[in-house]
Order: sequence, then structure tokens, then C-alpha cells
Amino acid sequence: MTSSASASPSVFHYDRYAYLGPAGTFTEAALLTMPGADSAERIPASSVLAALDMVERGDADAAMVPIENSVEGGVTATLDAVSVAHRLHIVGEALVPITFVVASRGARELSEISTVTTHTHGWAQVRQWAERTIPQAAFVPASSTAAAARALLQEVPTADAAVCSPLIAEQLGLHVVAEQVEDVPGAVTRFALVAKPGPTPSLTGSDKTTIMIPLPQDRAGALMELLEHFSTRGVNLCRIESRPTGDGLGQYFFSIDLEGHIAEARVADALAGIHRMSPNIRFLGSYARADGKAQRVGADVSEQAFSAAGDWVASLQG
Amino acid sequence: MTSSASASPSVFHYDRYAYLGPAGTFTEAALLTMPGADSAERIPASSVLAALDMVERGDADAAMVPIENSVEGGVTATLDAVSVAHRLHIVGEALVPITFVVASRGARELSEISTVTTHTHGWAQVRQWAERTIPQAAFVPASSTAAAARALLQEVPTADAAVCSPLIAEQLGLHVVAEQVEDVPGAVTRFALVAKPGPTPSLTGSDKTTIMIPLPQDRAGALMELLEHFSTRGVNLCRIESRPTGDGLGQYFFSIDLEGHIAEARVADALAGIHRMSPNIRFLGSYARADGKAQRVGADVSEQAFSAAGDWVASLQG
Amino acid sequence: MTSSASASPSVFHYDRYAYLGPAGTFTEAALLTMPGADSAERIPASSVLAALDMVERGDADAAMVPIENSVEGGVTATLDAVSVAHRLHIVGEALVPITFVVASRGARELSEISTVTTHTHGWAQVRQWAERTIPQAAFVPASSTAAAARALLQEVPTADAAVCSPLIAEQLGLHVVAEQVEDVPGAVTRFALVAKPGPTPSLTGSDKTTIMIPLPQDRAGALMELLEHFSTRGVNLCRIESRPTGDGLGQYFFSIDLEGHIAEARVADALAGIHRMSPNIRFLGSYARADGKAQRVGADVSEQAFSAAGDWVASLQG
Amino acid sequence: MTSSASASPSVFHYDRYAYLGPAGTFTEAALLTMPGADSAERIPASSVLAALDMVERGDADAAMVPIENSVEGGVTATLDAVSVAHRLHIVGEALVPITFVVASRGARELSEISTVTTHTHGWAQVRQWAERTIPQAAFVPASSTAAAARALLQEVPTADAAVCSPLIAEQLGLHVVAEQVEDVPGAVTRFALVAKPGPTPSLTGSDKTTIMIPLPQDRAGALMELLEHFSTRGVNLCRIESRPTGDGLGQYFFSIDLEGHIAEARVADALAGIHRMSPNIRFLGSYARADGKAQRVGADVSEQAFSAAGDWVASLQG
Repeated sequence: MTSSASASPSVFHYDRYAYLGPAGTFTEAALLTMPGADSAERIPASSVLAALDMVERGDADAAMVPIENSVEGGVTATLDAVSVAHRLHIVGEALVPITFVVASRGARELSEISTVTTHTHGWAQVRQWAERTIPQAAFVPASSTAAAARALLQEVPTADAAVCSPLIAEQLGLHVVAEQVEDVPGAVTRFALVAKPGPTPSLTGSDKTTIMIPLPQDRAGALMELLEHFSTRGVNLCRIESRPTGDGLGQYFFSIDLEGHIAEARVADALAGIHRMSPNIRFLGSYARADGKAQRVGADVSEQAFSAAGDWVASLQG
Repeated sequence: MTSSASASPSVFHYDRYAYLGPAGTFTEAALLTMPGADSAERIPASSVLAALDMVERGDADAAMVPIENSVEGGVTATLDAVSVAHRLHIVGEALVPITFVVASRGARELSEISTVTTHTHGWAQVRQWAERTIPQAAFVPASSTAAAARALLQEVPTADAAVCSPLIAEQLGLHVVAEQVEDVPGAVTRFALVAKPGPTPSLTGSDKTTIMIPLPQDRAGALMELLEHFSTRGVNLCRIESRPTGDGLGQYFFSIDLEGHIAEARVADALAGIHRMSPNIRFLGSYARADGKAQRVGADVSEQAFSAAGDWVASLQG
Repeated sequence: MTSSASASPSVFHYDRYAYLGPAGTFTEAALLTMPGADSAERIPASSVLAALDMVERGDADAAMVPIENSVEGGVTATLDAVSVAHRLHIVGEALVPITFVVASRGARELSEISTVTTHTHGWAQVRQWAERTIPQAAFVPASSTAAAARALLQEVPTADAAVCSPLIAEQLGLHVVAEQVEDVPGAVTRFALVAKPGPTPSLTGSDKTTIMIPLPQDRAGALMELLEHFSTRGVNLCRIESRPTGDGLGQYFFSIDLEGHIAEARVADALAGIHRMSPNIRFLGSYARADGKAQRVGADVSEQAFSAAGDWVASLQG
Repeated sequence: MTSSASASPSVFHYDRYAYLGPAGTFTEAALLTMPGADSAERIPASSVLAALDMVERGDADAAMVPIENSVEGGVTATLDAVSVAHRLHIVGEALVPITFVVASRGARELSEISTVTTHTHGWAQVRQWAERTIPQAAFVPASSTAAAARALLQEVPTADAAVCSPLIAEQLGLHVVAEQVEDVPGAVTRFALVAKPGPTPSLTGSDKTTIMIPLPQDRAGALMELLEHFSTRGVNLCRIESRPTGDGLGQYFFSIDLEGHIAEARVADALAGIHRMSPNIRFLGSYARADGKAQRVGADVSEQAFSAAGDWVASLQG
């Protein structure tokens, strides 16, 4: 790892990045939002697990993997893998708008397209547009949207056009026949940059912390007790999911993103409280939010309030 | 729909079932756990959305789709699609153990396998076994585990063996070289049987109810307030996930499975309470649990307790 | 009981009122705030229990008794007595400002006062004023502030002046030497008008409801569970006190005043919920607030929200 | 103050004790439960406030005052006075069974009693017994149960017998005609020993802590938020009362006794949390429980759990 500063910066720069490939997918677009990634080595991996493996084995310094809503599937278990199988930490987050183009090898009209190729999931997201605009076109499945785009350049192309990301169309020099063809505009996918445990990115004031908390979930009050630890410290949650642990019926853990950084008193105090009730809590990292949303921290959970409260109790204890 | 009884039964029988294909996957295995499905028409669909579409258009009476942990990906959004795009209801649940076999066209030893084909996700789940047991074998990707199995029967097979479900191996008459080759034994995938809104399956005493609740999620107390509605009625949660609504930053809904049936007072009372704070709550169905787990209902939330409390308050109101 | 209307009015008129005597105390002043009480029979009782007894035996139709902060003591147990020993209901509330005058038989200057008589508790509330203004005056204890005032009219008065209520000074035609001599201005005492169980005063939109809830109190979570029943229905508390039941160690009940009327859905629903967890809950009455404070009822706990929620759940249950 | 040890003992010994007099009441009995009080100077005060004043002015080292359920009234405001007017701390607690005897100057039969004297509140507590057993006896009010006993020794006794505490009967050498004549057996009154702020009595493992917390009380959620600070630290409450602050409508504070000692991590952590939301929280002392009830401290709120949680968070913060 090469860091741009001696103190812990809020975004680390690395020499070699793995990412869920192939090249030109939304994951590479996510990676390119990280400062310095455009000039670093970028290594596509065949699966999320393969990308994580590369980091663990030292073949890459960090890996960009999808966390939510991926077009091409398979993300539900990413965080589980990051935490359980690989013991990696999250050091950054990226948000990429999911928008598709229809691309062709040379200039072509929509009416000239009789076959169109893309990944099944991608096709599901543009189907209404396709039925309305290119009803004559037959669908040819591909293993990824990027593979679909590349297939246009084969000696014998598998289709007249591909539905793919703007990035791969640009990388391959394809002709863009139509843009923003997705049926539901505005979709965004979250990606996480993960690395081996090390220094935590520094506090920016717009941070997230990701944790996993084993807990017997099927009792009405257990989740409430867990959440009270957050609410009494004014810590907002960005995401919560219960997930089976896989090693027995009735066992669960909660995967949670919360607002704030482990360096902040309200976050540290909440995690300490949860550690008491669930000592196997796993910390997956504090990192800058991709959306830059400023935190609203109430006066009663400010650093000053924690400091004053600690001083008061210490004075009582003499 | 053909129902086996005039009153609402706990499991409906249908004539035509769609399911996430192809034939021989775990989803078809899930479908076959439904009474009568083995003798009904079973129609494979190319995607979850395609299966849901068939129900909505009336081309099938019900559809079996994966909800959690699918081997072949793409399930995160299933419930969203069931609820938002298709307005369908869940009428049943299935749990299928995820176990893989290594199958070949004719009898073959493990040492004779030099190429093995399966879906990328399937391969990820048996890779440690493969590295240990058939290190000589090269991996050939397939579009599904079922397609991998079928590829063994092509004129020119793509590989010497396939990693696939026991079901497809049996259906195709393949030779089973090795069983239970998954690296993590005990994994189970959940599937939901969905149909158009209609009568609710009757109360069995071992039921689940699925709901979606829009809520501003990023306030520390909002989720607590929601959960209080469950805890004050002793309603346990089986699953909870926050999910972005997709139509704006900071907007979320909660996808929840809870123990119990809408016909039970404690569930009805909790949902009524939540309806007050979130009138756009969506009910996705009450249905028998696949695991048959008996409910533990506290005395203070029994039907009798609700009835006695109602009588008392009515007496005060005169 | 004579009621001014055929429907249940918000304040009942009675023919005969008992009250904690003697005449001229703050309790009689509280009674006189009730419409019609000035022309009704008013019977002083020697103690709170004696006043309650009179109602129970039918010697009075209602009784006015102090609930909080009485100048002359003995109120802590009033509500317990109302509920447990006498099974009466609260039908009204009065608030009386606690202000004292210094009164003499004829016109007199402050400097002429060498002895002053009043109840010990009354003296405690004016002592700073007395030390500052009439330092020469010796204190002569009396059994009540009213008795102190009356003692000025004896053949041989026990003191030159009395510290008493404005009411008794006026009733006895005493000379007021100084007004508002209390050290802490603004104190207010609450009084309750109690009667045998019967029709509940009608809803005014500014009401209180008083209840007693037996509960094992010394578990951290039990009180939380109780309060959740109020918070999930947006019911505010005006007062809460834990009190030992007296019949064993570790047994408690909670004495609570809440905002709202049993005729309102949010109150009725909260009480029904609590009845489930504590079936021995005691209802002591819904009645108009003395301070006339308007209720703030959130949209999510309005009558309309309860009605809409009930309709929705009924539609799900078919 | 003379302390029996150099380290802070769990019960302090003092030279001069004030107490709510007169001599021979239950308050003196409470004082005599304190080690060393029998041989110390004991100074009766005419009121609770007078006793507190003596401590504040240095005329006594500590004062014993009733907190709950006093037979002779006037205790509701004791803790307010301790905290607000006098800024004293509680250093000990006593529980005294409230039991009455009927005493006479010389030996006398019950049938020989034609007049009986006691305080009005005492009379209320034995009236059923009296009506059943000595129906012929007329009641003569006295200013206290002790004064009633003493009145038997006057040249002209005010009555044939007195209802009083066993202590005063013994102190005055009276004849006990009947014992345990109270209508409701088992009543117990709590008393507090208060002193100027100084060292806190040491941890015994069976302790209480008393606090006062200003809080806007009439919002449904505010009390819940307060109580979450206790429940997340497993701190049980022994007593809670809301009380108006007296300086404006709608302003309240909560008077609370909780299980545990400020020297314990779970108590210190809870108070620190509450200090953040209500910085004017007042600490009134940690002291040994009179009932010696052992604390049940859950594993998740043990000293070890707090220590381990603190270490874990410190390791994350690097």
C-alpha cells in the first residue's frame, strides 16, 4: 500500500486493485471513482470471491466489489464473504448510477437492429424500452454486459447491438445508438473497496461504519435491545439486514451500516455497549460516505456532551 | 386455481406453476415440495421477473421463486418485484438444502475427470473440495448448474463432469461420481410460491406473514418506533431488511417476515398499529412456514388476552 | 347525583360534597372551582379517608381531596385510598394556587405583630419572608391554617396574626395585613373530585385519565414495556409514580395520569394493550383537565388513523 | 464527622444526629438502626425542613428523615428539599415496620378504655381494629403519636390510652395493653440519612443510588428515552416519580432510586448517558440498601463486560 500522507488519510491510494470483472462493467466504473485508481493497476476478477482472494493472498492491495443492487447479480453475500471468509475491512465506498446504452460496432439505426445481446439481468432492466422501441429485436444472452459489448467485435458478432454500460462502449470505441434505455431511471449501485485490516481511514465528518452482530433474532425484544444502543447515542442506521448464520436453525446476525466513524464518541460508545451484549460483534471498517451527506449530530451526542458527561461522572466517583 | 377444499386451505393446489428454470435446478426442487406439484404443469421461466410476469398475465397460476441465498444469484430483488412491480401475494414457502453432486455421462472415477462444468456461483461453493479432490480438473463455466448437466449429453460434451443438483442428475439419468461436495454443508435456500391476491391460506399455527413498510430510515428512533409495534404485541421477526426505494436519496422501506398469521389478533393488532404510522404498508401474504416451527405465543398476547382486554375497555366506555 | 343534562356532561353537579376540612382551607377553595358547588351542601371532613368514607357510605355524593403538594400534608396515599380501599372514580380535577396572607382580627401593622400562628407546614413555606419582615414575631403552632385563622377570633386569641389562605380570611372577615407572603411563588396544588363509579364525564378534548397498574417494577425492562404501550399510541403521561403495594417485598404498582379520555381510540387501545400484560390494571376515571390545556394529537394516532387502520386490517382478514 | 475507618466505609458514624421528632416516633426508631446511633447525640427537630436545616448549618452531622409512607404525613417533598433547598446527599437508608401498640399509664383492660389519643393519621390506620375491639372508646386527637403517649403522663392525662409506636411506649415505661393493632399489617416506612456532600459510602454489593432528572415529561417518548439509558446498562429502578418543578407549567423532573452504586460501571455509564440528555441531573448519593437485597447483575453488564468492551473499542481506534 502506498499512502499519500503519513497520517491516516480519508481515502487510501493503492498500487494494485482487483475488481469484479470483466473490464468495462459498472464495478470498474466504481473503482475509477477512487482517487488515483485511473493510473493504478486494475485487475479484473471472475467473481467477488476471486477478487477478495486476491487481496487476501497479496496479489492485489484492495478490491472493489458490489454490495447492493448489482445488475449482474450475486451481491447478497458479498459482505458476509468480506467479513467471515476473508476478514477484510472496508476502506471506501462508491455509488454508480446504473444506466445503459445500446451500442453497435459501426453507426446503425434502431430500426436496423434485429438481434441484441446482454446479460439476462441487464435485459430485464431494459425490456419495456426494448418492447416499445426495438420490438423486432431478438434477445441473445451473454455472460455479462461487458462480454456482450465485446462480442460485437468478434469476427462473427453474436448480435447487431449490445445493451451495456457507457464505460465499456467508450473503452471499446463502439457507436452509441441510444442512451439511458433503462426502464427505471435513477437506480444506483453501491460498491465497497476492501483491503486487509490496517489503519482506519481518517474521520471526514461524512462517514459510515459497517458492523456484523450475531444475535438470536427471533425474539421480539432482542432487536429492540440492540437498537436501543444506537438510539441512546443518537446513531442513525443507513442499512440493516438480518441474515442466517448458516450454522444452525434460529441463529442470525445483523449486518448494519451506521452513520459516523469509530473515532467519534457516540459511535465508539454504541459499539462498546453492543460488545457487552454480543461480544462477537465484528467491525468491518469506518470510511468516507460516497454521497458526501453531512451528518446531523444532536447536541446531546456531540463530542462535547460525551466529554462533559464523562467529567461529571468522574467527579462523582472522586 | 383449483383448490382442494371450499374453505381456505393452508396450501393451495394449482394446475400450472411457473418457476425459475431451467428444469432440474433447486427452484424446481422447491416447487416439488408443494403438494400436488409433481403432477401439475411446471413451466420453467428464464428469470424471476419472467416467472412473475407469467402469473400476472394468467399464463401460470402461481410461481416458485428464490428469496434468499440462491446458488445462482439474482434474488435480492425478488420480494421487491413481487410486491412493487407485480402486486402478487406469497401463498407458500419452501426450504431446499443446497447440496451438489459431481455427475458424469457414464460411470467415471474422480481421477478421470480433467474438465468440470458448472455455474460460476456453484463453482465458488465447491472450489475447496475440487482443489483438494480433483486438482487436475479445469473449470468450464456454464449458464446454470442445470445447463452444465445437460451439456454432458450434447454430441460434443463441454466437460467430463458437471457440478449440479441431485435433482437434475436424477432427471437426466447421469452417473453420480460424488455427493455432498459443497464446502459448507447445511446451506438452505428459501423459495416463495406467489400468486395473484386472493384468499389467504388458512391459519396452521406455524405461519409467517411478509410485509413491506416504507419509512424514513436514517433517523435513529424511527426503526425503534416501528419495532415497538411488534414487541408490544409479542410478535417475533424472522427477517428484516432495509432497502432503498429507488426513487430518491434517503428513502427506504423495510422488508419483514414475522411469525404469525393475519388471522391472529396479535399480528392484526401490530399491523394496524403500523398502518397508522405508515399507511402505505404493503401486505404480501400469510402462509405456512416451511420449517413447521411451532409458535411460542405468550399468555399476554394470546387470543384470549386480546379478547379479555377488548371486553374490559368496552366495559369502561359503557 | 343531579346532572345538568341527560347525556354525560363533562362536569357533574352534585347536591352534597364532602371535602378535607376544616372550612376555609385550600381544599374548600378547590371545591368552589366546581360549577354549582358554591350553592351545594359542603361538608368538611377531618381527614381524606373520612371524606372518602362519606362518599362510600352515601353521606355525600362526591368528595374533593388533595392529590399533590398539599400545604397541610398527608396526600401521598390519597389516590391509593381512592382506588384500593374505596373503589371510587375521579370525575373532576381542580388546581389551586397556594398563596398565603397574614391576617389579623382588626387593622394592624406588621411591626405590631409579636406572635403569629399557623400550621407547621404553612410556617415552613413563609419562614424566609417572616424572618425578613417580622423577625420579632414568635411562631405559635396550629392544627391547620384555618384553625389558626379561627383562633384569632377566640375570646383569648392565641396570637396577634395568622398565616392562612385568602379564602378563610375573607370568610371570617379578617383584616389582611400582607398578601402573597409565600417564599416560593407560583406553587399550585392539585385536587381530585371523586365519586362512586358511574357514567364517565364526557370528552372535552382536554382530558386526563388516571390508572393504576400492578407490575413487577424492579426489572429494568418491565417499565419500558409498559411505556411502549403508551408511546406506540402517542399517549403522553402527565404523572407517573411507582408505589409499593404493601403486601410483600418487591411488589409495585404504577400510578399514572395520562393525557386523553377513555372515549378516544388511542387511549382505549393503549389501555387494552396494558390490560394484556397486567390484567389487574385499575381505571380510576377520565375527566376534564383543570388547566384546560389543549391536546396535541399526532396524525398517526388520530381517530381517523385508528379507523383507517382497522378497516385495512379487516380487509386483509376478508 | 467521625468515621470508623480511613477508607470510605459503607455506613458512616456521626456524633450528632438530627431527626424528625418528637422522641419516640418511628423516625427515631429508624435512626437507631444506624450503627453507633444509640450512643450518639440525637436531636429531635420539629419538621423535616428543620432537621435538614440543622445539618446545613452544622448543628448536626446528619439527619434521619422519612421518605415514603410516613404515618404522620408530610414526606412527599422530603427528597425535593434534600436536593433543591439543601443540596445534601443521602448516605444511608432505614426501613421501619409500622406497627402500633395501645399503651396506658398503668395496667388496664381494653374494656376499661373509654378515651384513646393519637395522631389523626395513626387513628386512620387502626380504626377498624378500634371499632371492633374498643367500640366504646372516643378518639382524642394529638399532634403526634409520641405526643399522645406523653400526654398519658401529664398531671391530667388527655385520655385513658394512646395508640403509639412500641419505641415510645418502652421509652416512657408505659403498659402495653395490645400490640400490632394496625388494620393493614406489614406496612414499612422508608427513611433516609442525609449529610453534607462528602465521601460516598463504599460499595457493598447491595446498594442504591438516588438521582433527580429534569425532563420535559409530557412527551410520550421522552421518558422512554430516559429509561433506555437504564435498560441498555441493565440498571433496575427501585422507585420513579415524576414531580412538577414548581417553576412553570409543563416542567417536570423525575425522582429515581436505582439499584447499584456510582462506583459500578453500569451505573456510571447510565448516569453519563443521562447527563448528555439532561445535564442538570442531580446526584443525591449512593448508599447501602436497608433491605440488604443482593443485586442480580447480568453477565452483559458486569464490570468485566464493560472492561472488555472498552478494550475492544480502544483497539479499533488504534
